[in-house]
Amino acid sequence: MTRERLYIFDTTLRDGAQTAGIEFSLEDKIAITALLEELGVDYVEGGYPGANPVDTEFFREPRTRRATFTAFGMTKRAGRSAGNDPGVQALLQSAAPATCFVAKTWDRQVELALGITPEENLETIRETVAAAVDADKEAMVDCEHFFDGFKSNPDYALSCVRTATEAGARWVVLCDTNGGTMPAEISEIVGKVLAVAPGSRLGIHAHDDTGQAVANTLAAVDAGVRQIQGALNGLGERCGNANLITIIPTLVLKPWFADRFETGIDKARLERLTRISRAFDDRLNRAPSRQAPYVGASAFATKAGIHASALLKDFSSYEHVPPESVGNERNIMVSQQAGKSNLLTALARHGIHLAKDDRRLERLLATVKEREARGYSYDGADASFCVLAHEVLGTLPTWFTVENYRASVERRHNALGEEVTVTEAVVKIRVDGELLMSVAEGNGPVNALDLAMRKDLGKYSSRIEDLELVDFKVRILDGGTGAVTRVLVESRDGSGERWFTIGVSPNIIDASFEALYESIAYKLLKTEAAQRTTERVA
Amino acid sequence: MTRERLYIFDTTLRDGAQTAGIEFSLEDKIAITALLEELGVDYVEGGYPGANPVDTEFFREPRTRRATFTAFGMTKRAGRSAGNDPGVQALLQSAAPATCFVAKTWDRQVELALGITPEENLETIRETVAAAVDADKEAMVDCEHFFDGFKSNPDYALSCVRTATEAGARWVVLCDTNGGTMPAEISEIVGKVLAVAPGSRLGIHAHDDTGQAVANTLAAVDAGVRQIQGALNGLGERCGNANLITIIPTLVLKPWFADRFETGIDKARLERLTRISRAFDDRLNRAPSRQAPYVGASAFATKAGIHASALLKDFSSYEHVPPESVGNERNIMVSQQAGKSNLLTALARHGIHLAKDDRRLERLLATVKEREARGYSYDGADASFCVLAHEVLGTLPTWFTVENYRASVERRHNALGEEVTVTEAVVKIRVDGELLMSVAEGNGPVNALDLAMRKDLGKYSSRIEDLELVDFKVRILDGGTGAVTRVLVESRDGSGERWFTIGVSPNIIDASFEALYESIAYKLLKTEAAQRTTERVA
Repeated sequence: MTRERLYIFDTTLRDGAQTAGIEFSLEDKIAITALLEELGVDYVEGGYPGANPVDTEFFREPRTRRATFTAFGMTKRAGRSAGNDPGVQALLQSAAPATCFVAKTWDRQVELALGITPEENLETIRETVAAAVDADKEAMVDCEHFFDGFKSNPDYALSCVRTATEAGARWVVLCDTNGGTMPAEISEIVGKVLAVAPGSRLGIHAHDDTGQAVANTLAAVDAGVRQIQGALNGLGERCGNANLITIIPTLVLKPWFADRFETGIDKARLERLTRISRAFDDRLNRAPSRQAPYVGASAFATKAGIHASALLKDFSSYEHVPPESVGNERNIMVSQQAGKSNLLTALARHGIHLAKDDRRLERLLATVKEREARGYSYDGADASFCVLAHEVLGTLPTWFTVENYRASVERRHNALGEEVTVTEAVVKIRVDGELLMSVAEGNGPVNALDLAMRKDLGKYSSRIEDLELVDFKVRILDGGTGAVTRVLVESRDGSGERWFTIGVSPNIIDASFEALYESIAYKLLKTEAAQRTTERVA
Repeated sequence: MTRERLYIFDTTLRDGAQTAGIEFSLEDKIAITALLEELGVDYVEGGYPGANPVDTEFFREPRTRRATFTAFGMTKRAGRSAGNDPGVQALLQSAAPATCFVAKTWDRQVELALGITPEENLETIRETVAAAVDADKEAMVDCEHFFDGFKSNPDYALSCVRTATEAGARWVVLCDTNGGTMPAEISEIVGKVLAVAPGSRLGIHAHDDTGQAVANTLAAVDAGVRQIQGALNGLGERCGNANLITIIPTLVLKPWFADRFETGIDKARLERLTRISRAFDDRLNRAPSRQAPYVGASAFATKAGIHASALLKDFSSYEHVPPESVGNERNIMVSQQAGKSNLLTALARHGIHLAKDDRRLERLLATVKEREARGYSYDGADASFCVLAHEVLGTLPTWFTVENYRASVERRHNALGEEVTVTEAVVKIRVDGELLMSVAEGNGPVNALDLAMRKDLGKYSSRIEDLELVDFKVRILDGGTGAVTRVLVESRDGSGERWFTIGVSPNIIDASFEALYESIAYKLLKTEAAQRTTERVA
């Protein structure tokens, strides 16, 4: 049975650049294009040549091998020819073999924003597309406000689509520009557009303003369109574009779509999805969303509770797709009601393989339960679980011991009468019998302790050089400053791995120190194998 | 034209508690219930009485006034009567007038996970519902794995629905437990369920594993169901439950739904949405999602670009709903206009009435903006806003000034070789020219500072006697221990009022001290009027 081809059009570098707080450098654009090529999208819309120096530079040379490199811009202005329109010419002269022109298709917008007649607007669409075709470009038209325009004046919206296709546009893309359209409306309207253009020349561009960008996109596919526009991790203006990282696995894995359609992304490529999604967030320097469909750290996580025991009997019943199909992992969290088999799974994730009847398992389970009763929570601090497991199993090396530490904060007036705060920490550790004492100033007591502890770990110093603290969270468990404090520290290293450690104490400084210490211990555990190899070679 | 009523069922406190990293205390559950009541949901599913001490305690008394308080649990075990099933009895004896039982409806699961026959399972559904009805409870059944079950054996899935409704269940809820069903499948299957039960007795419970929980929920409503289950901000196992904060405004504002349906939430209540969503994240100590539909900080943000100038000509064309309809704000990154009228409203809340053209308003607005740019967030710290307003308006009394303070934490070994931590704080304040110096030990530096500062406030001491710290939250704004720290302190006093104050500093101790100081200032402001009266009488 032959399946129809769907085309994936990525607009991360163009519409994604409209995200609040995002600004791509040329380096970013090159790196993100590499991720998109690895993923296997069909089009990479790289930006808006002529609009800013980065985009202009980016379009000076071809940037893709597999995907079609696409330039974005406006249709020509009314009253001048496409040949005399510098905006259109910047696109036609760019190194991209494809051009996507945004055109207004809502009559009210044509008059209000462009100040021209609806007929003049059709003329600009026709001439712009024709100029691109003449210049040997694959021409596309993004129909801005298409669905709102259709609701207001269906004949005019359709005449824009007809004009673009007749002028030779390979794709005419129906845009839900303000993101307010419902999936059922998308289905209905796409159905009517099919009267003037075949689905094989129609695309969909959805925004997430009602949380339905993915559903709107898939509804349009069901209704007939064959090109899908979206962005990595749902980047984009306001609430974001349709999230390609969510849409792609649904198209590839769900029989509802997979039985009828194929994309340029096969099951083998799909296994790269989680890594690509996280690498993209790393590039943007933001923490990946734990709840993200398919690729989030929690997407296949189950807390010990009503589902965990059933899950162990039959994974397929609580996992809508196998986690490995998208390169993600099952995560049965160690938590208060944890059983032995959960624990075995969690240990295996850290390369610790025990027999079911290993008696140390009982001891570890009892320790986890006792600590969770005191406020630890290992489901969010897997690295601390790993350190604890090695400790209980007797496989945690003694790299160094902390003899004592001290932190002080003083707010006072300096000689000039200005308020100043001085923070200082001293840490004494012992490495192989030798006492190392370090002192550091910091922005706060935790920062000062972190700096002091890492200042000198003797021979282990080089192994934690690329360790970096990413986030630090504090929760009071029973309310009030006199209660138990739980500190969660997120760390990462040069490999891109992120891990969480936890500390619990009535004293926030002790809790923080514990979490910092365990982050270092986890990093040393990670590098232990590599270290042993190096020592043997040396 | 009469509209049909839709019922909103919130499961934040039950299914939301399955979220990785989330653990609700009793205080949390009470506070979140207050938010849900303020929002106006119809049902609050509070947890699982008998499953853990917090939930058992929570169900000891009625916790809602407006919404129907609902207990969750399993149907009875096979082979014993409902009267002899401690799980079922825990629900029936709880203070909740409604009970929601989860029942298996996928024949394979019944055999695999329960080890009973499909017929026995129908019997447990029938008897459990009947026992709840006999106990005068509003009975509901969550049909676990309903859609997967239906695909595998439609007759059996339907017979579960029929059994539950015939036994007297007010609602039978169709659950997409593993979250893998497509909206079109939901529509189709709900259509078939209508043959055995009316839509007015059917609910939908969707998960976001394909990014379509919202769309699946709305598709089910379109197909006929009248109860919607979901959670605040999409909390929930794996990728989360359907996000009520996204669904509700769509139901209330979009003609597609609003023309046909009404909920317990009218347009006036809807204006609280953004505040409630953010207060909930504050309670969980996590940063609100900027891209969240309707309520995100970016939901109505436009970057200067192709849309900004058009937006200024006609807001409605780039905003699918007015931001104020959900209590959010337009954020055009080129103009800083918004805000003055918001400010007047906020001031009035604290009894401060200014004229629109009062020039101090400009100064306050500028101060708030400048401080928010540095990391303050007055949304969640209204008491700090009140103190700041009085300060900028020149109406803040000088009760006392803090000359300096010092806190130190030392971890060392005592004479017995035990590890001990000693924490001490010293605070010097001046009251009416007199220098008062206090020292205190505490469980941590913040606790010690709090105790030291309150130890002696001279003549003001009696006015803060009933001040109590309830919670203390810390968030790092830029990541890493070297970044800016935001501390939020929750306080309450004998009147039962609770208030929030905020402190921001690179130093966690300074930030905490600022928040503690402002909590005292707010309490002194509160008692100022009473005090003046007392003085006059004396």
